[in-house]
Amino acid sequence: MTNILFAASQSAWTKYETHLTTALDATGLDYTLATDLPADQVDYIIYAPNATVQDFTPYTRLKAVMNLWAGVEQVVNNPTLTAPLTRMVDAEGLTQGMVEWVTGHVLRHHLGMDAHIVNPDQTWDDTPPPVAKDRPVTILGLGVLGQACASQLSRIGFSVTGWSRSQKDIPGITCLSGPEGLRHALLGAQIVVLLLPDTPATENTLDADALAALPDGAVIVNPGRGTLIDDDALLAALPRLGHATLDTFRTEPLPKDHPYWSHPKVTVTPHIASATRPDSAARVIADNIARAERGETLHHLVDRAAGY
Amino acid sequence: MTNILFAASQSAWTKYETHLTTALDATGLDYTLATDLPADQVDYIIYAPNATVQDFTPYTRLKAVMNLWAGVEQVVNNPTLTAPLTRMVDAEGLTQGMVEWVTGHVLRHHLGMDAHIVNPDQTWDDTPPPVAKDRPVTILGLGVLGQACASQLSRIGFSVTGWSRSQKDIPGITCLSGPEGLRHALLGAQIVVLLLPDTPATENTLDADALAALPDGAVIVNPGRGTLIDDDALLAALPRLGHATLDTFRTEPLPKDHPYWSHPKVTVTPHIASATRPDSAARVIADNIARAERGETLHHLVDRAAGY
Ligand SMILES: NC(=O)c1ccc[n+]([C@@H]2O[C@H](COP(=O)([O-])OP(=O)(O)OC[C@H]3O[C@@H](n4cnc5c(N)ncnc54)[C@H](OP(=O)(O)O)[C@@H]3O)[C@@H](O)[C@H]2O)c1
Ligand SMILES: NC(=O)c1ccc[n+]([C@@H]2O[C@H](COP(=O)([O-])OP(=O)(O)OC[C@H]3O[C@@H](n4cnc5c(N)ncnc54)[C@H](OP(=O)(O)O)[C@@H]3O)[C@@H](O)[C@H]2O)c1
Repeated sequence: MTNILFAASQSAWTKYETHLTTALDATGLDYTLATDLPADQVDYIIYAPNATVQDFTPYTRLKAVMNLWAGVEQVVNNPTLTAPLTRMVDAEGLTQGMVEWVTGHVLRHHLGMDAHIVNPDQTWDDTPPPVAKDRPVTILGLGVLGQACASQLSRIGFSVTGWSRSQKDIPGITCLSGPEGLRHALLGAQIVVLLLPDTPATENTLDADALAALPDGAVIVNPGRGTLIDDDALLAALPRLGHATLDTFRTEPLPKDHPYWSHPKVTVTPHIASATRPDSAARVIADNIARAERGETLHHLVDRAAGY
Repeated sequence: MTNILFAASQSAWTKYETHLTTALDATGLDYTLATDLPADQVDYIIYAPNATVQDFTPYTRLKAVMNLWAGVEQVVNNPTLTAPLTRMVDAEGLTQGMVEWVTGHVLRHHLGMDAHIVNPDQTWDDTPPPVAKDRPVTILGLGVLGQACASQLSRIGFSVTGWSRSQKDIPGITCLSGPEGLRHALLGAQIVVLLLPDTPATENTLDADALAALPDGAVIVNPGRGTLIDDDALLAALPRLGHATLDTFRTEPLPKDHPYWSHPKVTVTPHIASATRPDSAARVIADNIARAERGETLHHLVDRAAGY
């Protein structure tokens, strides 16, 4: 018998219970799935960092913690967690949703849609935008989500540059790494998309210096994490920049009195760039548990030292 | 010597002259290109329907008229034109631009962006949209532009249905034709894109009956032609529908007092869904003239009887 604890909010349980049961049944495992189990009998924890479980010490036979979200910054440094940690990678749900959101907002800025969506003066200006090949887009982070977005934008025709910690080689994408690579990635970018994880090394990746490297009129799109941007530096740089569309913030929901809300060059989206989709996410988790039970290596393992 | 008359506006000449010269030089033709030539010596007319040339009778040795635009409704019925008529088909420019515009606006409506772009109440509603496969998109018109848009939207993941005069068979796209096909194409469509030409047969394709077939909340995107929609019927149906993003109108620029301008469910874009791009368009025209001079069939011939 494999014992699986679901440790996330009650509302997550409501959304996930049926899908997890269906997906776990399909694996043929003999299992128990519950929101409450004796700690010393739990094999796997399906986890959201906002769960009540913060001390993993009593979970003495724990084989893995499977994070329901892609970002693991709230659990990765938990010293009581010694079992392997996986994060959410879900092509049909999380990745697909992120590609749609990023492609949509990049096209929105590329086409200058806002001037048509809000146009009280009834301006009729039929100057066309450049075609996508003449619009350089930079993506910071070439992981699962960054690569998927880079490929889609490149397929549409954009000139895409990507930046990551380790050097990549992706057909059709200019791949850069390292501090010099970052400068280069920003210098010619007209649209910058942030898909880095929240780690000590990525904090304030867009600080005053990095923002100064961007050309006038550049647009920032941040579906990564709020910590990637120095907010004061961004507010100071905005008069020179084109726009910032921000989906993630240091405090969420974004506090009512935050200057981003009313800034004419900022669009706030409520951390919806990509939601976990319970149906496909449940299949990913069930398959991963089944892998482990067959003695295979877990998919989507977090590198605890790197922090993502 | 091949004599080519450029008969379009002065501003078009300013944009096209260098590109046409470069492209024609590249073909190796012995040619003259001018905005003024004796009518009886003209071999080809590069044409925009807003040109002063409306009577083609004096052009006694005319081999073809090459329309600078994709839509030919203003020249196709000219009884004085007996030479072949071609329209603009330009993968790198016109088609590419249309795919970008349609993909952008479909994603905008799919993601519900407007609620974030204009959000004075600072609403933080993190309900995610469905993923694209659960969003049915219908494209009316599966010609050069409709097919290119259908393929791109399908690659992003949307469930795409297309409708055309002749029955098509396109992998991944549900293809329909005929009056019953139209009803079917509209019945389940959450987003409808109009890419039909302006002909007597397509006028008011979206009339009160067709609009009534659309489900509540459906969105209309019209980069085709203004005549495709019965404007009064649309205004009457809008309370039940989601939105209409309109790029083309019966009168352009859209008159200042038109109810579309101030309607909260209408976005007006100034006929910019896709502009002709002088560099690539010039190559298309030069290559087509060179084909004809080599005795080959012209590309992009208009079917005068069908009207497109
Ligand atoms: N807003 C939302 O709804 C939402 C939803 C899901 C995810 N997210 C965010 O998106 C992030 C990315 O997700 P993912 O699945 O693509 O993660 P991932 O596969 O782990 O990719 C992370 C990428 O960032 C790069 N990176 C990490 N640290 C770096 C550093 N110090 N310098 C340069 N590059 C660095 C990595 O480089 P290497 O390739 O060299 O390792 C990798 O390319 C998540 O961490 C989460 O914060 C947001
Ligand atoms: N807003 C802009 O910036 C912009 C720019 C360029 C073009 N346009 C518009 O886009 C239109 C389409 O361009 P295109 O190059 O794709 O034209 P196209 O290749 O000629 O395609 C026209 C499509 O409409 C279908 N069609 C025509 N009459 C029909 C009818 N009575 N019932 C059902 N389907 C019918 C055709 O069916 P078959 O395949 O069976 O022939 C074909 O699939 C142009 O005519 C122009 O009005 C707008």
